[in-house]
Order: sequence, then C-alpha cells, then structure tokens
Amino acid sequence: MGSAMFESAELGHTIDKERYEAEEPALREALLNAQYDLLEKKGFPVIILISGVDGAGKGETVNLLHEWMDPRHIETHALDAPSQEETDRPAFYRFWRALPPKGKIGIFFTSWYTEPILSRVHRQTSNADLDQRMEQIRLFERMLASEGALILKFWFHLSKRQQKDRLEKLEAKARTRWRVTDQDWRHFKLYDRFRRISERSLRETSTAEAPWIVVEGADARYRSLAVGRAILGAVRGRLDEPVEKPTESHTAPFLPPVDNVNVLRRLDLAQSMDKETYEQALDKHQGELSRLTRNPRFRDISVIAVFEGSDAAGKGGAIRRVTGALDARQYHIFPIAAPTEEERAQPYLWRFWRHLPRRGKLAIFDRSWYGRVLVERVEGFASESAFMRAYAEINDFEEQLVRHRIVVVKFWLQISEEEQLKRFKEREQTSFKRFKITADDWRNREKWAAYELAVCDMVDRTSTEIAPWTLVEANDKHFARIKVLRTLSERIESALR
Amino acid sequence: MGSAMFESAELGHTIDKERYEAEEPALREALLNAQYDLLEKKGFPVIILISGVDGAGKGETVNLLHEWMDPRHIETHALDAPSQEETDRPAFYRFWRALPPKGKIGIFFTSWYTEPILSRVHRQTSNADLDQRMEQIRLFERMLASEGALILKFWFHLSKRQQKDRLEKLEAKARTRWRVTDQDWRHFKLYDRFRRISERSLRETSTAEAPWIVVEGADARYRSLAVGRAILGAVRGRLDEPVEKPTESHTAPFLPPVDNVNVLRRLDLAQSMDKETYEQALDKHQGELSRLTRNPRFRDISVIAVFEGSDAAGKGGAIRRVTGALDARQYHIFPIAAPTEEERAQPYLWRFWRHLPRRGKLAIFDRSWYGRVLVERVEGFASESAFMRAYAEINDFEEQLVRHRIVVVKFWLQISEEEQLKRFKEREQTSFKRFKITADDWRNREKWAAYELAVCDMVDRTSTEIAPWTLVEANDKHFARIKVLRTLSERIESALR
Repeated sequence: MGSAMFESAELGHTIDKERYEAEEPALREALLNAQYDLLEKKGFPVIILISGVDGAGKGETVNLLHEWMDPRHIETHALDAPSQEETDRPAFYRFWRALPPKGKIGIFFTSWYTEPILSRVHRQTSNADLDQRMEQIRLFERMLASEGALILKFWFHLSKRQQKDRLEKLEAKARTRWRVTDQDWRHFKLYDRFRRISERSLRETSTAEAPWIVVEGADARYRSLAVGRAILGAVRGRLDEPVEKPTESHTAPFLPPVDNVNVLRRLDLAQSMDKETYEQALDKHQGELSRLTRNPRFRDISVIAVFEGSDAAGKGGAIRRVTGALDARQYHIFPIAAPTEEERAQPYLWRFWRHLPRRGKLAIFDRSWYGRVLVERVEGFASESAFMRAYAEINDFEEQLVRHRIVVVKFWLQISEEEQLKRFKEREQTSFKRFKITADDWRNREKWAAYELAVCDMVDRTSTEIAPWTLVEANDKHFARIKVLRTLSERIESALR
Repeated sequence: MGSAMFESAELGHTIDKERYEAEEPALREALLNAQYDLLEKKGFPVIILISGVDGAGKGETVNLLHEWMDPRHIETHALDAPSQEETDRPAFYRFWRALPPKGKIGIFFTSWYTEPILSRVHRQTSNADLDQRMEQIRLFERMLASEGALILKFWFHLSKRQQKDRLEKLEAKARTRWRVTDQDWRHFKLYDRFRRISERSLRETSTAEAPWIVVEGADARYRSLAVGRAILGAVRGRLDEPVEKPTESHTAPFLPPVDNVNVLRRLDLAQSMDKETYEQALDKHQGELSRLTRNPRFRDISVIAVFEGSDAAGKGGAIRRVTGALDARQYHIFPIAAPTEEERAQPYLWRFWRHLPRRGKLAIFDRSWYGRVLVERVEGFASESAFMRAYAEINDFEEQLVRHRIVVVKFWLQISEEEQLKRFKEREQTSFKRFKITADDWRNREKWAAYELAVCDMVDRTSTEIAPWTLVEANDKHFARIKVLRTLSERIESALR
C-alpha cells in the first residue's frame, strides 16, 4: 500500500516534549505577529484547508491555531449539509460566501474537497465525476491564487495500522469508549478505498499555486509544529515579498486587427422596425415571456440576463421592456457600479456570486462581470494578466451557472459612433435626470476604438455554446428591444423543454 | 360593517380614462426625477409596504411602480416561507436582510404584517399574541424612522360586495375563470374576520412616523394615481426638506451625578486570585463550559456573548479563555471596528443582525452595538437623541434575541485608571504587535470621566432581567477571567434547564 503521496507521512514522525516546549513559544509569537502584519496590510486573504482521515487531529489542530493566533481574526467554517438557500445555487456558492476578505484567515474544516471525495467513497458518483469535480476545484483555486489568496491545504494522514490502534486504544478505556461509534468502524472498513480515492484527488489537485501538504497525524506535537511552521513560513514569506507591480513581461497573444472586419462592424445597424410593427411585436413577445415565466416548470430553473453595451445604446430601455413582461416579485435588477469596500476585499467575481438568483427567479445585470474585460481593460484598472485570465474564469463561472440549470443570456447592444453622438446631444436637452450626460461619457467616446477591440475579444473568447452572446443592432430602439425579448424567450423556452 | 378605518375606501372612487391619461405622464416624470434625486443624495431609504385584501390590485400596483420608475433601483421582496437560515434566527431577521440601503426604494409585498395577521385570521394565535406582535412592529418602524427611513404603508381595500363581484366576474368569463381558485372562495368566507383583524392591526400601528394609507382598490386608475401621488409627495417632501442638523433642543433627562457613588465605583477592584487557584479554577470552568456546549440540548439554543470594557481591560484575554473551552467549529468572534460602506448605508443595528448565530452556535462580540451609547456618545458621533433612543432600541433587539432562545451574556470589564496606565506602559515595552498602544488609546484616557458616566447610564438602562450586564472587576486578570467563564456557564446552564 505504499502510495507515494502518503509515504512520508507514515514514517512515524515524533517530537519529544522537551523540544516542543522549547520551540512552541517562539513559533506562537511569530505566528501572532504575522497575523497582525497580515491584518494591518490587508494585502491578501489566507485560506487554510484542514482535511484528512478521522482521528488524525484535525479538530485539535484547528483549536490550537485559534489558541496560538488571535481568534478574533480567524473565521473557521465547518459547513453542515447545505441549506435550501445554498442548494438553490451552484455548489460553490457556499464557499464563495465563506471566503475570508483580505487580511483575514479563513479555515475550512469542511471544504470543497469533502463532498466530492466522500460521495465517491460511498459510490454515489463515478471516477469520471470525481475527475471532473477535481478539474473544477483546480480552476477555482487557480482563480483564488491569481486574485492573491494564499492557499494552504493540509491533509492529515494516519496509516491503517495507526488508525486501528487509535480506535482500539479509545475503546479499551472506560473514559473514552463512548468516543468510538459504529460509524467509526464502518469508516475504518472503507480505509483502503478512502485512501485510494483521496490520493487520486490530491494528486490531481496538487498544483504549483496550491499544493497539498500531507501531515502525519499520529503525534500531536509533531503535527502541531509542522502545521504551525508551514503556516508561518508561507504567510511570512508572502508578507515579506518585495511589493512591486506584477511585471507585464509578455504581451498577450491577441490577433492584431489586420483588416477592417470584425464581429461588430459586420452588424447591419441599419435594421429597423416601424412603430406599428413594433407595438404588435412588443405585445406578442412580452406575452410570450410572461407566459413562459409563469410556467410551473419555470420554478425549477433560474435566469440570468446580462446587459452590456456602449453608453446610450439603450440598455435601460431594453431592460424595462423585459421587466414590463414580468411580475415584480420574480426578478431583481442589479445595476453594477464601482465595487463597495467589502467587495474590493474579495475576488472580483464575489460580488456577482452574492447576487445569484434562487430557483424560479430572474436576475438582470445592468453591466456585469464583463466589466473586467471591458472598462477595466480599457482604462487600465486591470492588468493585462488579470483581464487575460478573466476570460477563462468567466467561462468557468458561467459553466457552473448553466450546469445548475441557470439560463445565462448575454446581450451586447451596439450603436454606431454617429448614433451615439446624436443621442448624447438629445440627452443634453432632456429634463429626465436619468439621462444626464457626464464628462465620463464624453471621455469614453474618445476611446471608441479601444472599446471596440475589447468587445470583439470578449465576444470571441466568451461566446460559448452554453452561454452565447447575442449581438443586438441597436441604432433602432424598436428593433433592438424586440430582438432582446425574442432571444430571451427563445432561450427560456428551450430550457423548459 | 362601517369601520372607520376603511370607510373612505368604500366610497367608490373612480378616475376616468381621460383624466388619467392627462395626469399620468407628469406624475411619472416627477416620480422618476424624485427617484434619481434620492439615488444621488443617498440621504435615506424608502420602504414601501403593499398590503391588503386579495384582488385589490397589489401586484398590479407594484408592477406599475416598476414601470413608472427605474426598476434598477427598486428592490421588491415577495418573501416565501422563511428558509432554515431564517428560522434559525428571530422573526425579523429576514426583513433586516431585505432593508434597502440609503438612496434606494424597497417594496415589501410580503411584510412584517403578513404573517401576524394571517396566523390570527387562521386562529393559530390569540389576540394577545397579535397585540404583542403589533407592539414589536411599532418599535421596529419607530427605529427605522428614527434612522431616517421614509416608510410608506399602503393597504389596498375592497368592500365585501366589491370582492364578491370581482370573483363572480372572473368566473363568468372563460378566459379568466382559471384565475379563481377554491382558495379564493375560502378566503372570501373569511372576509369579515380578516377585515376585523386587519383593522385592529392597522389601528395599532398607524403611528405618526409610519401611518397607514388605505387605498380603495376597485378602480385601477384611481388606485394608481393615488399611490403614485402619495409616494411622490412623501419622497419629494423629504428630499426638499432644508438640510439642517437635528436641533438638540432638549437635554436628555439624565440624573446628574450628585455624589461620588456609582455602579462602577462600587466595584471592589482589589479582588484577586493567586496563580494556583486560578489554574485549578480555569480547568474546572473551561471543562464545565465545554461540557455544556456539547450537550445535545445546546443545539436548540444559541449564545451571544458581548465583551465591552475600558482599553487594556483584558477583553481579548478573557475571550481567549472562553474560546479555549470551545470547539473552533462552534463559534465566531466578531471584532467590531468602524462600519463598512454597506453598513453605513443601513440602520446601525443592521451590522449586528447580519452576524446573528445559527442554532447550536456561539457568537462572541468584541465590542458591540453598545458602541452607540459608549464611544459614539462620548465622541459625539451620535447625537443625543440618537443615543438616547438607542437604549430602548437595544433592549428591544435583545428581547427579540432572548425570545428566540438566544442566551445574551454581556460583560463590562472594569479596571482602575492607575491599572490602565500601568498596562499601557507595559505594552509599550512588548514585542507583541497586537498589544500596540496608539495615540487613540492615550486620548481616550483623557475622557475617563465621560466614559464612566456613559457606562453607568448604559448599565442602568440596558441591564434587563433577560439580558443583564455582568460587571467584571478586572484589575486582576485571573479573577476577571474566572468570573467571565463562571457567569457564561451559569447562564448557559440555566438556559438548558
């Protein structure tokens, strides 16, 4: 049974009392100071996973970490069965909710590994399922690491012999006999299987940015010092890294525009619809949408509609034609502006995860996570490496949504430069405050070409089969609104089939 | 059946089409502009309740408001049955979660009135229960209003005759027959009872700060204009109020200190405990606390422990002795510092509601909602009227917690001025960063007398039978920690009985 992953954790590591007592105070002080530096700098979150076999000291270690450091700035999560609010959303929702903000330490006692491994051990899922979930985890952890999180994954190990000894010892004493339940012995019978599956999972998820650290769990002093030092080394190392802007050594391998053709310029913006046709079509398509969202089967799905577009492209008007067909109790609209303080202390997708709709509901995003590859790219708020990886992160995010039966419909509303100018000028005349034109709007206009490039890249890289972009020719508002309504209905209808 | 409350809403109000069409566009524009001014100033939240009898146009009105205004800045809540995450907390938790921040409009389709009224109609509760819940609602709304919320409570009314006509008309047409269910007729049979109980509830909760507005619901044009104008008038009125600091015309009727005696000075700070006694007592009381929190009955309650005290009084050390007895998976510690942006846009208790523990868990607050009547009072961050009303608001908050089987234990750790000075000086020598002394700490010392007064008032006004303060003599850390542990265990033990 000599699996490489666990071999070093079966060597019988021990630390004697004297040495432990000599080393513990200094370790403790250093950890506490590191924690306070972390808190002060608020530079990154620390995510610690405590996993492994039963009886290998997981609980004791977590309690010890709370004792060593300041427990006021540690958030420990032992998640029980997911609540209804959680099962209504994709599986990772509960972990997103629990992520520590920058400067804090989050300990996950139950982590994203727990359920995938256990359900495979109990044969509720296949190896292929397991692999797929490990792949998802890799993407999740890579995203966390790219966003700056320090991830420490501990696996507490006991050999089969050690496990058996432990249970027998506990049973031998009257005082501890109660701690051994039938379930413990049932688990023990699954030891080999659990070990095999764990090893496979660990191997697949031991990455450069988030490697597993396997700790022999039999000796309390050994495992305590080992874990304490690993945490100290990692946190201190990161804190002491010279702060410098990430070097943008490479230029992203974009295809440079060599001719005048792109997906946006291909659009026939002259398409229009006369008022009478529009009003009939509006009635028809709003009725259709209303009917679909009242369908009893709609209660099993949810919808996310994303609206992006140039300034003054008519996003607001299109959204109102959509909501005009819906019951106000069914939807929420999220206008996306600058992130709040709490949101800035988290990975950029965090603010969108928190707004995911429950079953039977619609979430409408007026601007969205695509800000990362649009305004943040063009304005230089996101580094090239940040927006380059965003494409894959976003695709992964949307895949999780779609897999959870959320219909993701994405609209890009496109107008011509001339049409925008006309609308800006019109708006300057209007008394409706919501149409006010700001200096920002005029400034953005000057970056028309940069935005165009960003939009084309975005469409190329994130228009997936499961969550395609719909480009809407929006010079004519009638035409645009009907296209939006029709597309939305079609997408919902096919999801209800 | 001529009950005064509803009489004016049975007069057969109607608006003809011509008049409606003449007035609607201007109303709409004015509403939209008011909404944008509100959003820009972020001065206060608008809370709109839409309640009343079935079929009186509640849903239609909400949809219309979404159409008239910008739905992106309206949050409408139609709360279904509470989720487990919600039932784990006091009944008002779900409404606190849904409160709109300053600048936004929140529409409650299901409100804090829905369940109390319906459960009384269905005879699941008594009149006394209903009255008690209306009293709670009054306190809640008064708090919201004091915090600046604009509260508009609409009750849509139909007379019994109108209700019957409506159902018969719907049934007569093939196209609408499906809309009338058996449940509608069952509800209709309860009409008189529902009316009586609603009237009682409305009467008891029609206050100066949040009066009910009863709207006759039969004519769609009438009710639309009536509601639209009421909202416009209220929002515009509040927006256009001259902005001035609330005049502090009255001095709060405090008992001025006329001698040298108060609850703090009465404490015998000389009490101490030698190291050996302490270590034995620590073992004993931590063991006790550990045993109690592992008791199966503990899963039915929760615990909130509040730690307040002078700077350097030893709150952190006391908390660590408490958590040392607990499983890290069972508790969360919330160190309370300055509120975040999102928290500042809400009533001050909002940030504490969001951290309420679930069943079987402990929440430990290192500083708490009492900041309102301590630091905010002394530093002048809260106006006199704000901190004066806070006492009652806090008592009400804690009453809700206790009634929900949350054990609320509050500690004030008191040291003498001399002891504080000694500790400050010691801390300046230490290498532990968490003990750093800041300029703030020295500044607070100069306000010793003001803090003392604030603490005495706080204890006088918020030490209730259900959530008493425990004053802890903390010049000796050993003595203080044991007193904290013992008190906490006693309180939990009596809750488990």
